[in-house]
Amino acid sequence: MNFNDMNITIVGLGMEGGSYAIAINHYIKPKNLFAIDINENILIAAEKLGVIQKGSTDPKDILPQSDLVIMCIYPSDIISFIKIHMPLFKSGSIITDAAGVKRSIVNEIIDIIRDDLDFVPGHPMAGNEFKGFLYADQKIFHGNSYLITPTQKNREENILLIEQMAKRFGCSKVYRTDIETHDSMIAYASQLMHVIAVSIVNNENFSHDINQFIGGSFKSATRVANINPDLWTDAFMQNSDKLIDQINAFTDNMNLVKKALVEQDADTIYSFLEKSRMKSNEYVSQFE
Amino acid sequence: MNFNDMNITIVGLGMEGGSYAIAINHYIKPKNLFAIDINENILIAAEKLGVIQKGSTDPKDILPQSDLVIMCIYPSDIISFIKIHMPLFKSGSIITDAAGVKRSIVNEIIDIIRDDLDFVPGHPMAGNEFKGFLYADQKIFHGNSYLITPTQKNREENILLIEQMAKRFGCSKVYRTDIETHDSMIAYASQLMHVIAVSIVNNENFSHDINQFIGGSFKSATRVANINPDLWTDAFMQNSDKLIDQINAFTDNMNLVKKALVEQDADTIYSFLEKSRMKSNEYVSQFE
Repeated sequence: MNFNDMNITIVGLGMEGGSYAIAINHYIKPKNLFAIDINENILIAAEKLGVIQKGSTDPKDILPQSDLVIMCIYPSDIISFIKIHMPLFKSGSIITDAAGVKRSIVNEIIDIIRDDLDFVPGHPMAGNEFKGFLYADQKIFHGNSYLITPTQKNREENILLIEQMAKRFGCSKVYRTDIETHDSMIAYASQLMHVIAVSIVNNENFSHDINQFIGGSFKSATRVANINPDLWTDAFMQNSDKLIDQINAFTDNMNLVKKALVEQDADTIYSFLEKSRMKSNEYVSQFE
Repeated sequence: MNFNDMNITIVGLGMEGGSYAIAINHYIKPKNLFAIDINENILIAAEKLGVIQKGSTDPKDILPQSDLVIMCIYPSDIISFIKIHMPLFKSGSIITDAAGVKRSIVNEIIDIIRDDLDFVPGHPMAGNEFKGFLYADQKIFHGNSYLITPTQKNREENILLIEQMAKRFGCSKVYRTDIETHDSMIAYASQLMHVIAVSIVNNENFSHDINQFIGGSFKSATRVANINPDLWTDAFMQNSDKLIDQINAFTDNMNLVKKALVEQDADTIYSFLEKSRMKSNEYVSQFE
């Protein structure tokens, strides 16, 4: 199916959903772009701004006409939304999501979903530290990767459609991976970074005088400490086993440095820093 | 004394010393800018490039004519350099440094320094993750703060001279603080950030596949993992008590999150994230 013949619907017009909406308008140009949200004011504003053609707080106004539905609500809400509104989805339609955790969502949805619907799990490695439609920005996709964790039920053409959407958004690469690898790597590369940032900021030294003493390393490390607590609490809880593993591996490293400091063992610290320098250099081209 | 009448000397023409040299040429315009380094090739290159007027590997060619000497060598080398070459310093001259730790240097130097010399301890909150003269860049000072930890022996006019230099470099603010506060805050705001970055990178997940899974939070948090192991091992060892305290406070926070995950206690995680969000918002204007 061609994008120009499709009605696309965003469920949840927050920062991420709004960013999808803007990117879809710019790069996809579907027949219609719809939105479902619990906040009617946002829908009215998005209509007026020309971001969507039509919005509704009632899924039955929208879902029966939607060929592609993009779930941009919190992970724990995705399953209940799909369950409750299952009869409303258009036969043959594709559902995708943008959730940062996959095992907890994908396993349950493929068990319950109607056979004539196809759920293609997606996760754009894109976002910013802000919350709400006003912070929507199509640029969050640019140069970032887009992960897809296909299920055995997926039709290849539907996976390719989501991949094509991501590429048109300006994502640097689209990767397919399995849900186990996805959730482990996300626990490491994303969730752990957020636990670290808040653990730095929740310190008595972070107060009025801090400005005197901070340089680039502090600003970088704490950028995401201005966190959306609803979203990330939900994501952490849904991936708690993997995140616990990553916190353990990370604090083991911190404690290795601490032990060496206590023992005045400069050689161990030097080796640890040199290992980091070499690893950074080995993979640094991948960062830039 | 006016800068235009002064001979200024950089000891150690690496990334930081080179950055001082370039900034001094641009903003200070002293009578002469000299340099001392153990690497003659760097001195010859710096002379040819017009960055310095004269360089020497032998301090006795330079120190007797220097009105201001800026120590840009590793913290542990500063004391021995000043000790060994004490007789060579010009009477009335000012010595300053750029070291990131202060207690271990300042206490010893004020005990041994000649009465006709004035050591004004300085610490620009400036740097980059690279090593060596080729990475020298006057821009490292722009918009960053410059810390001075005056001693009771300092002459006010000499402190003001270093402050004026920092302001001309484009530093955002110059702060005076005591060495205890300095070393505690630097352990928190700088050294801890580097221990965190290397502890993230020294993980089996940081390998060929990592590029698929990283977003902005990972790139930010690991930027300084490409670390100079000599410099930072030295800095960590010289401030080990304060750094141990900060690692403890930080890992206590990480473990609080871990415990809540183990106990499936979403409320505690939510409160912890919300605290971070509020603190970030309260002080965010200071960051930008």
